[in-house]
Amino acid sequence: MSATKDSALKIVVTGAEGRMGRMLIRAVAEAEGCTLSGAIEREGSHVVGHDAGTLAGLSPLGVEVSDDPLPIFAEADAVLDFTVPKATVAFAELAAQARIVHVVGTTGLSDSDLEKLKAASYHARIVRSGNMSLGVNLLASLVRKVAATLGEEFDIEVLEMHHRMKVDAPSGTALLLGEAAAEGRQVALSETRVSTRDGHTGARRPGDIGFATLRGGSVVGDHSVIFAGPSERITLSHHAEDRAIFARGALRSAQWAFDKPPGLYGMDDVLGV
Amino acid sequence: MSATKDSALKIVVTGAEGRMGRMLIRAVAEAEGCTLSGAIEREGSHVVGHDAGTLAGLSPLGVEVSDDPLPIFAEADAVLDFTVPKATVAFAELAAQARIVHVVGTTGLSDSDLEKLKAASYHARIVRSGNMSLGVNLLASLVRKVAATLGEEFDIEVLEMHHRMKVDAPSGTALLLGEAAAEGRQVALSETRVSTRDGHTGARRPGDIGFATLRGGSVVGDHSVIFAGPSERITLSHHAEDRAIFARGALRSAQWAFDKPPGLYGMDDVLGV
Amino acid sequence: MSATKDSALKIVVTGAEGRMGRMLIRAVAEAEGCTLSGAIEREGSHVVGHDAGTLAGLSPLGVEVSDDPLPIFAEADAVLDFTVPKATVAFAELAAQARIVHVVGTTGLSDSDLEKLKAASYHARIVRSGNMSLGVNLLASLVRKVAATLGEEFDIEVLEMHHRMKVDAPSGTALLLGEAAAEGRQVALSETRVSTRDGHTGARRPGDIGFATLRGGSVVGDHSVIFAGPSERITLSHHAEDRAIFARGALRSAQWAFDKPPGLYGMDDVLGV
Amino acid sequence: MSATKDSALKIVVTGAEGRMGRMLIRAVAEAEGCTLSGAIEREGSHVVGHDAGTLAGLSPLGVEVSDDPLPIFAEADAVLDFTVPKATVAFAELAAQARIVHVVGTTGLSDSDLEKLKAASYHARIVRSGNMSLGVNLLASLVRKVAATLGEEFDIEVLEMHHRMKVDAPSGTALLLGEAAAEGRQVALSETRVSTRDGHTGARRPGDIGFATLRGGSVVGDHSVIFAGPSERITLSHHAEDRAIFARGALRSAQWAFDKPPGLYGMDDVLGV
Repeated sequence: MSATKDSALKIVVTGAEGRMGRMLIRAVAEAEGCTLSGAIEREGSHVVGHDAGTLAGLSPLGVEVSDDPLPIFAEADAVLDFTVPKATVAFAELAAQARIVHVVGTTGLSDSDLEKLKAASYHARIVRSGNMSLGVNLLASLVRKVAATLGEEFDIEVLEMHHRMKVDAPSGTALLLGEAAAEGRQVALSETRVSTRDGHTGARRPGDIGFATLRGGSVVGDHSVIFAGPSERITLSHHAEDRAIFARGALRSAQWAFDKPPGLYGMDDVLGV
Repeated sequence: MSATKDSALKIVVTGAEGRMGRMLIRAVAEAEGCTLSGAIEREGSHVVGHDAGTLAGLSPLGVEVSDDPLPIFAEADAVLDFTVPKATVAFAELAAQARIVHVVGTTGLSDSDLEKLKAASYHARIVRSGNMSLGVNLLASLVRKVAATLGEEFDIEVLEMHHRMKVDAPSGTALLLGEAAAEGRQVALSETRVSTRDGHTGARRPGDIGFATLRGGSVVGDHSVIFAGPSERITLSHHAEDRAIFARGALRSAQWAFDKPPGLYGMDDVLGV
Repeated sequence: MSATKDSALKIVVTGAEGRMGRMLIRAVAEAEGCTLSGAIEREGSHVVGHDAGTLAGLSPLGVEVSDDPLPIFAEADAVLDFTVPKATVAFAELAAQARIVHVVGTTGLSDSDLEKLKAASYHARIVRSGNMSLGVNLLASLVRKVAATLGEEFDIEVLEMHHRMKVDAPSGTALLLGEAAAEGRQVALSETRVSTRDGHTGARRPGDIGFATLRGGSVVGDHSVIFAGPSERITLSHHAEDRAIFARGALRSAQWAFDKPPGLYGMDDVLGV
Repeated sequence: MSATKDSALKIVVTGAEGRMGRMLIRAVAEAEGCTLSGAIEREGSHVVGHDAGTLAGLSPLGVEVSDDPLPIFAEADAVLDFTVPKATVAFAELAAQARIVHVVGTTGLSDSDLEKLKAASYHARIVRSGNMSLGVNLLASLVRKVAATLGEEFDIEVLEMHHRMKVDAPSGTALLLGEAAAEGRQVALSETRVSTRDGHTGARRPGDIGFATLRGGSVVGDHSVIFAGPSERITLSHHAEDRAIFARGALRSAQWAFDKPPGLYGMDDVLGV
């Protein structure tokens, strides 16, 4: 840990060449109170040695992309990591050694990978979430609360829309919101989830949590959770304009975790909800 | 035909005891330029002889419910008829004899029933629609036009929400809107319709028309047609507050048809679109 | 207090002749676990002695409207009161004597009236709110929380739509939601409120809370609070289908307060938020 | 005119260095059936001689930015021009001489400027609009039609939301939509427009066209026109994700105008509505 709260937080970005990596570089470069202190790519990448700013479509930042994380981590305060499970597990160990914050946006982690993150978190501050957007995580906490407050006379429906290229339905975020609703109601989503309706469906079963999916155009991601009761409806919605919100959430997580004790945190901790 | 355009239109309501019949009585009683001149129920109904206003939850209107349509039709300008196919076919013949407008909101008519209406319309003005709401029919005409104007780079999605007791999906109105979109594009809805999405769906197929269904609470009926293109979206929506809109559309149809030549008309004719 | 939790709650409705009083009678008649035990109107009203059910457009309920509250309160568990300040203050004293729950939806109470309710609440359970809808009060609690969680990089806007006859803007509920946002941010609404925008306004001032008002048709009441940040938006909305939601909220308040100690409660207490 | 319909349309972009100019270059580079044949900047600009692709953040396109439009226009099929009135008037003359399509997205043109465009259009195909988005122009045509179809029992409201930096209200596009509504109703917007509501407003005046404005975050531009009638509402909405839609509309205008006779066209002509 090489910085005090007063100076700029020194941030490393892994997977610097990827779409998310370049977005993270831009987010760090544009944020106040932060500075990009390193950028990592895997050994053999043709961008190693290039300027990270140029790589991200910015003016040069004076930071060369490196394939050797250890000395970079040693001089940093935090690492933002949206890569692949194998790399993330390795980074977790290095981050713990360097005593820096590890923000993990990597998806597809196995239970065994999560165990390793858990182990690393005895010595390190790790923030991990399947969706790093502040807005989506805040929405999930609201959904949990509303579902816990309102009874079954309010029917819960989750609606999402994404671009035409998306290959799965409902979206991971829609399921995350449905899980939050189920938790609030203390039921299992697997037993209450209704993902399709077509033809003669019969009346809605009390307690069900319904999902509806729209696909089209270039929509980045819209989600709504509807609580439809007798003569009134509450709708909680999130609209994403671009994927930069994930980078911004990661950065805020790093800033939040800087003065926290070691541990494995989620976005609810960052948001304080 | 007993009225001139300057005096109030004399309207008869059939099926006076049913939920829709009573709504029609209220709509006629509240509208300007109209007067309720008769109310019909089937022979043997216990409401025959009762005041139609009282039946509809209003103050007495001085019109007794009758089971004998012929003399009632003879003194009227129009009949509003949301009953059952068999009754509607019989009323069509009587209305043609009496030379009065016949507004048909009855659903479930067979091809043979429609043939009989067609035959009656050589001598009578008949307006028929599966959904008498002005707003929904206007929306359908807009959808047809937009679908014809925009190319396949705009994806079409139809979203609807109804109350928890509705037993089928998508709603008849959602299908009517999907048909309008398909007509605009000159494709068959049966070949482009996608009613469910769940699990690994793959990317959206160009030209598909998607449907999504929400159920909950006491929602009377919300419909949206979304045209999602590259970086922009057009959404055309209809929100129904109560079922009175069907009665109001029927009444407007009667007023519209009053000075038209004999023929079988639809809501597009009434709307002039 | 004449009932145990196991038997039906005995409820009295005041102002039985008014639109809200009749709605309350219907709500009690239709709810489970409740029974209408009395209905009050002012002395001299022509409905005194009439059946409360008939008055409310239902079948007779066997409860005569009375102008003498004392014996009626003595046999009841709760009174639902949407009348006028002077009557409410008098009912508060009687309800305290009878040890029954007093649910107050009356608006326009002065500070002195509120003092009297406060005094009565030392011996009685009183629930009071300017808006008895569960949904709106829940929404306000969410708005307070989100405003407290998100910083000034999220702009807050309150949008409302009501029917064409409404004579003031923004609606009282919109202001209630704006107050909740201001509380969450620990600012004064009076210093941050922007109610109109027209012509050259300049850029939005950070920290402002904006209001926008739509009027038209027969809209019962739609409210949205929008948190618009960098590249994402959270929208929290409430849609009212009919005014019965206020009656239902009053009833739920009575049920909630039944086993609580004396005190002056609000809808946040009822909702447990 | 140097191309046939079968070969790629040769397009020139003016104001190549500006934000809109670079967006136009990208739109041409990405579109099918088009090729960038020239890019113009004013004399003395430091980007003259640079590659237009590089300037627009793309790979080099082999087209140098030039400050001499005449020879560039002579070899082209169309020019996309979002510059300033003075430049646009000069380009109109050159485009007419070269017999190429002139697409004008320039705003702030005076009546005298429009006269000059009109004169040039006797020999040239000019497409001009204050908003080149297909979606917005299509929406305006729908609004005009709906306003003409529905009577005054439907109240018209225009709602818009834009980012926090926007300095005027309502947006130009909201006013364009309001004008379309007024045209449909055959009334003057200046006599029916209501842009603010605050305090005791009284009931809505029949026939008014209301505007409501939201500001916040980074919203590119959302517009809705609401037709609120008795118990039903039709809402027509447009949502813009990014400003590329204006470039795309300009390109489609050029393609549309290619085989048309000389004349001054608008987006309604391009859309065929």
